[in-house]
Amino acid sequence: MLIARVIGTVVSTQKHRTFEGAKLLLVQPLNIDDTPRGVALLAVDGVGAGVHEKVLIVLEGRAAGEALGKKAAPVDAAIIGIIDQVDVTVA
Amino acid sequence: MLIARVIGTVVSTQKHRTFEGAKLLLVQPLNIDDTPRGVALLAVDGVGAGVHEKVLIVLEGRAAGEALGKKAAPVDAAIIGIIDQVDVTVA
Amino acid sequence: MLIARVIGTVVSTQKHRTFEGAKLLLVQPLNIDDTPRGVALLAVDGVGAGVHEKVLIVLEGRAAGEALGKKAAPVDAAIIGIIDQVDVTVA
Amino acid sequence: MLIARVIGTVVSTQKHRTFEGAKLLLVQPLNIDDTPRGVALLAVDGVGAGVHEKVLIVLEGRAAGEALGKKAAPVDAAIIGIIDQVDVTVA
Amino acid sequence: MLIARVIGTVVSTQKHRTFEGAKLLLVQPLNIDDTPRGVALLAVDGVGAGVHEKVLIVLEGRAAGEALGKKAAPVDAAIIGIIDQVDVTVA
Repeated sequence: MLIARVIGTVVSTQKHRTFEGAKLLLVQPLNIDDTPRGVALLAVDGVGAGVHEKVLIVLEGRAAGEALGKKAAPVDAAIIGIIDQVDVTVA
Repeated sequence: MLIARVIGTVVSTQKHRTFEGAKLLLVQPLNIDDTPRGVALLAVDGVGAGVHEKVLIVLEGRAAGEALGKKAAPVDAAIIGIIDQVDVTVA
Repeated sequence: MLIARVIGTVVSTQKHRTFEGAKLLLVQPLNIDDTPRGVALLAVDGVGAGVHEKVLIVLEGRAAGEALGKKAAPVDAAIIGIIDQVDVTVA
Repeated sequence: MLIARVIGTVVSTQKHRTFEGAKLLLVQPLNIDDTPRGVALLAVDGVGAGVHEKVLIVLEGRAAGEALGKKAAPVDAAIIGIIDQVDVTVA
Repeated sequence: MLIARVIGTVVSTQKHRTFEGAKLLLVQPLNIDDTPRGVALLAVDGVGAGVHEKVLIVLEGRAAGEALGKKAAPVDAAIIGIIDQVDVTVA
């Protein structure tokens, strides 16, 4: 899993049927010090996350489908938690 | 999932039987500002996308097979939506 | 699988229901000579690992879900062992 | 999926039992302009491809196992088609 | 799949229960010319490989679990063959 910040939304009217009703968010992966890590990606929202929030992302189709509650949904990334705190003991 | 633009087509006459009838498109992944991100890849079309269109790509075999409606199809990437709009709130 | 060191913890109160009770640790992948390899990531703890310990990480949703004892859990990385010793014969 | 050229063969006498009879080929991934992309990898042949041919590769265990006709086979890449033509409309 | 050389062993006493009895080897991926490719990783041994041997590695949890004979084992890489010969026809 990785930590990311929700930075935007994506609108797709014409999409795969198992995908109806899913909220698609644009998320920017972060390093431990909150600097951006790599490029932004799209994730399905499984917990009701909002823009600006720091979230927990799972990267895998099976897992992401579970998060969406639709095992057969064609997704490969999902937001599965909202991050409250990160404690780094060993730097 | 990632955003890409359809940039071409691929013809393969001799192919795996579960792959019959599938439309194979060449897609170029994009950054948020629509510049190309990395190299082009091949994706099965699950929504009737056309060349030049901006699409939503799922990268995973299980998910891509679902998009194609054939769980057992040997695919690892699929077009599952056509992108209407991307709103970036936090840059 | 890869070798990593547990370097911190993550708190997420609002999370996916299948994720309740799971301990989420921040781990830093290591090279053979114990120098850091790439960036830190989040893994679910399947063996009761603690901060500072050298652990064995599996990177895949299905496998990670098994480690957690919840096949349907939306996870993609898990700690599945604590490393006692690494012997490199051929450098 | 990606496009590659078959560049060689691999012989492995002592191998996993589900792997018996499988033809293992060395393939070099290609860019759109047919220049090499990254390093060569090994793929199981699912369509009767030969050395020098341009092929369609699927990268994923489940999908590759399907291509081989053995769901339980421990493979992660397979040749699932022979490429006749690639048309790039948008460069 | 990729080609690698077994370069060492790893000892982990406290590990996930489905992992009991599995032999864990440290393997260095190789290029076609036998030079090292990237960093070493850990793989479960499915064929009785020894240190110094050139082996065939599969990188995927489902496939690796099959190799180990335990579908539910939390592994993501396995040694599934010993390489006798690699013939590169097209360089």
